[in-house]
Amino acid sequence: MSRTVRIIGIDPGLRRCGWGVVDAQDNRLSFVAAGTVTPPTDGALADRLVALAAGLAEVLMAHRPDEAAVEETFVNAGPRSALILGQARGVALVTPAQHGLFVAEYATNLVKKSVVGTGHAEKNQVELMVRTLLPTASFKGADAADALAVAICHVHHRVSLKRMGAVA
Amino acid sequence: MSRTVRIIGIDPGLRRCGWGVVDAQDNRLSFVAAGTVTPPTDGALADRLVALAAGLAEVLMAHRPDEAAVEETFVNAGPRSALILGQARGVALVTPAQHGLFVAEYATNLVKKSVVGTGHAEKNQVELMVRTLLPTASFKGADAADALAVAICHVHHRVSLKRMGAVA
Repeated sequence: MSRTVRIIGIDPGLRRCGWGVVDAQDNRLSFVAAGTVTPPTDGALADRLVALAAGLAEVLMAHRPDEAAVEETFVNAGPRSALILGQARGVALVTPAQHGLFVAEYATNLVKKSVVGTGHAEKNQVELMVRTLLPTASFKGADAADALAVAICHVHHRVSLKRMGAVA
Repeated sequence: MSRTVRIIGIDPGLRRCGWGVVDAQDNRLSFVAAGTVTPPTDGALADRLVALAAGLAEVLMAHRPDEAAVEETFVNAGPRSALILGQARGVALVTPAQHGLFVAEYATNLVKKSVVGTGHAEKNQVELMVRTLLPTASFKGADAADALAVAICHVHHRVSLKRMGAVA
């Protein structure tokens, strides 16, 4: 029996950044916690990003995950929206890495495929499947569901990462 | 005579992030230091962003600026490039803010207009004007020149920020 690994999944966003923590022992999953960091929507961008980093740091310190997985959100919006999302994403990637965590990235389609079975699943299908895979899960909102889906995706993929020596 | 304020200008980028520090007493400028943070170009994105944050933090601790100004780079590339730039920009904004600095943002055109007199100045015109305004400046490369230009732009604009109470 292998040791339990605690994973945090993050669905980055400047207004709403979803996070979800699961424990994995081999492929057995259990829900730990999930929620959404909501930085203030007004004020200077730098201050909003600081609030996002502080919110994520609080979650990391409360739940002490071993590894992080961040959704590589598909960019179909204009370059300006992509730039804003990128800024939130930079903070979502750098914060767990600064806490010493290995940080994996997964494209949205891969997350959906890994959790629902198809890369073109609807948002509510993802949430339904997350609730099925984690029956004790208690969370609100699509952002937390997406974050838990990223964490589950990482659990499914970490076997090959382990083989490559990227995770312990 | 007002007190001297130390400003750091930052020209964000994932491969090359320019920085430049100037002292300003009213509108009188003097060069302090400038350089470029160059995170490794290989490895995981999260690790490259951590190297960027660490490089900037080192500069902040070495030169102890009072305020920061970050260039709001014009995005004319595709959404994917904008996302990558945004990630570096998120780290460039959040790092000085986490060190307690007020962080201003200036669009590239405004920086050029403020330093050269026209928003459509060429890169070499910006560098020439930076060297004219800061005769003792010693730096290499366009990224450091751009960063010093952002710092100079902030010096020119902080009078109105002061009136608004945003800076001391």
